[in-house]
Amino acid sequence: MQPAVTERDLNQADVADAARYLAGRIVPTPMLGCPELDELAGTRLLLKAENLQHSGSYKMRGATVAVGRLAAAGQATGVVCQSTGNHAAAVAQAARRHGLAAVVVLPPDAAPAKVARAAAAGACVLRADGDPHEVVRQVHADTGYPVIDAYDHPDVVAGQGTAALELIEAAEAAGTPLDALVVPVGGGGGAAGAVLAATGRGIDVYGVEPYGCDSLARSLAAGHRVPVTPAATLADGLRPACVGALPFRVLRDSGIDAVGVGDDAIAHAFRLIVTHLKLVVEPSGAAALAGALRVAETSTHRTVGVLLTGGNVEADLVGRLMEGSAA
Amino acid sequence: MQPAVTERDLNQADVADAARYLAGRIVPTPMLGCPELDELAGTRLLLKAENLQHSGSYKMRGATVAVGRLAAAGQATGVVCQSTGNHAAAVAQAARRHGLAAVVVLPPDAAPAKVARAAAAGACVLRADGDPHEVVRQVHADTGYPVIDAYDHPDVVAGQGTAALELIEAAEAAGTPLDALVVPVGGGGGAAGAVLAATGRGIDVYGVEPYGCDSLARSLAAGHRVPVTPAATLADGLRPACVGALPFRVLRDSGIDAVGVGDDAIAHAFRLIVTHLKLVVEPSGAAALAGALRVAETSTHRTVGVLLTGGNVEADLVGRLMEGSAA
Repeated sequence: MQPAVTERDLNQADVADAARYLAGRIVPTPMLGCPELDELAGTRLLLKAENLQHSGSYKMRGATVAVGRLAAAGQATGVVCQSTGNHAAAVAQAARRHGLAAVVVLPPDAAPAKVARAAAAGACVLRADGDPHEVVRQVHADTGYPVIDAYDHPDVVAGQGTAALELIEAAEAAGTPLDALVVPVGGGGGAAGAVLAATGRGIDVYGVEPYGCDSLARSLAAGHRVPVTPAATLADGLRPACVGALPFRVLRDSGIDAVGVGDDAIAHAFRLIVTHLKLVVEPSGAAALAGALRVAETSTHRTVGVLLTGGNVEADLVGRLMEGSAA
Repeated sequence: MQPAVTERDLNQADVADAARYLAGRIVPTPMLGCPELDELAGTRLLLKAENLQHSGSYKMRGATVAVGRLAAAGQATGVVCQSTGNHAAAVAQAARRHGLAAVVVLPPDAAPAKVARAAAAGACVLRADGDPHEVVRQVHADTGYPVIDAYDHPDVVAGQGTAALELIEAAEAAGTPLDALVVPVGGGGGAAGAVLAATGRGIDVYGVEPYGCDSLARSLAAGHRVPVTPAATLADGLRPACVGALPFRVLRDSGIDAVGVGDDAIAHAFRLIVTHLKLVVEPSGAAALAGALRVAETSTHRTVGVLLTGGNVEADLVGRLMEGSAA
């Protein structure tokens, strides 16, 4: 693997480099689709099942690259990060693989399934009422552990981009190349990775945010990063208060469109994915399909890629979503 | 593809032949596993996700081989079959692919998801109160359409066996070869195919039946086929009144063990698959994991393969299973 990139020169080659590193280290998740969803969307949908990834989400990609690089450098004895949950679980699992300690900082209302995954991988789990980044800085000051930010980290952005790259390449190999790609947006790391992966391929990229968690949409409109006070949403993974600085530098001039979705649309997409794809995704992953269905209504794309980013969801929420009582 | 085999000489080579025919025609479904399930079982579990197969179940394999062979022969204009649902959906989809008509005979209480799949593929759906085989014979007499039996058909048995073969080969390629393989049993076609695929590989095969739907267990004990009056079960796909004649000839002296499971164990396995594998299976598929957990309790297998045969389940049943109110 090449040395760590700086923020300035992060580009498509870094995603390809991350993909080479990840080969054999992650699950080569399937690309799925079905006539029923195509008919509903009025266009071909190809969905990447990252809910089947190690640690239950595509965050395993960036964490594997970032932690692997640190471990190869041989100087760190542990790592620290903040996360709504999936990045924490992924960093914990990657750290354990390399014999490093992991401290993960989660919000008090993090999804129990994600907290449990991080704890099961041996991480020290801290719950932060206030600004999680402040807690991370304190842990870093106390321990010297490098910070693996959930989105403001070049290895994380490049690693997350490999999910989009695999989907783009699988669609090409199937003879149905993508002309659009829809990804959910929290801190923007996965979206930035997707934009890098899609560079120069004639693919329109869309970033999906829950209503009221639209820092990317507001930031794109303003031309600079705009924080929000995240509204309540089913999509617990898409609640960061602000798109990250590094992702925003990638996304700002990329032509990405922001798409808003509500809980009703997310719950509906969740049920479609269960019924037609036979997959269990978390609401943040279902948000991508909800956004894709909205995009399909108003565009003429022939083949739309959808990143189903994760599957860490509570059993009782699955029940409520299927019975229509969660949204 | 070789000419159709007769019942007498059905063997491992027929499964390999079917696998060659199916390459590129079906979904190469993933082999999955996770530490949480391994820990619960006390052994390594490798699960084949045939819920992601075309038509929503592994029945697509046998139907594709059987209908494809008929279409290649060029004499039939349609096909007829009976089924609890998945075989009907698969035959309907395979027939449409080749421009053949399909008549499918289903019980009055067939799972609506399966009826809808068959109808959506353009099949003529008949509901039979009495003996579905009798209705099939009548349709065959009226139309001349060849009968593609759901399990008493060599192409169907060989085709279903390819799911087991893929799992066996994927486990070998991963360096963790199976020493046991657990499959659900309805009419026994999939179990017979699995036994053929496993021949000479040192793999113990187990067939899982719901309590009160134990025609295989009774038939193995008696040395001849014993019909049952199927009891009520969550596993709507495992209710045939009797193991098929051809499957039983394969299974009789194979050393297969029959394992019984109840609705509680099936519902528990369903929740485990949702929570840890992020997959939606139908209860008949979950029955295989329920059986595997039972096998693991009383055996010393190192690596147990589990065939998750299908995913055609009602949305409201998913909700009730997750909330614990279905069993």
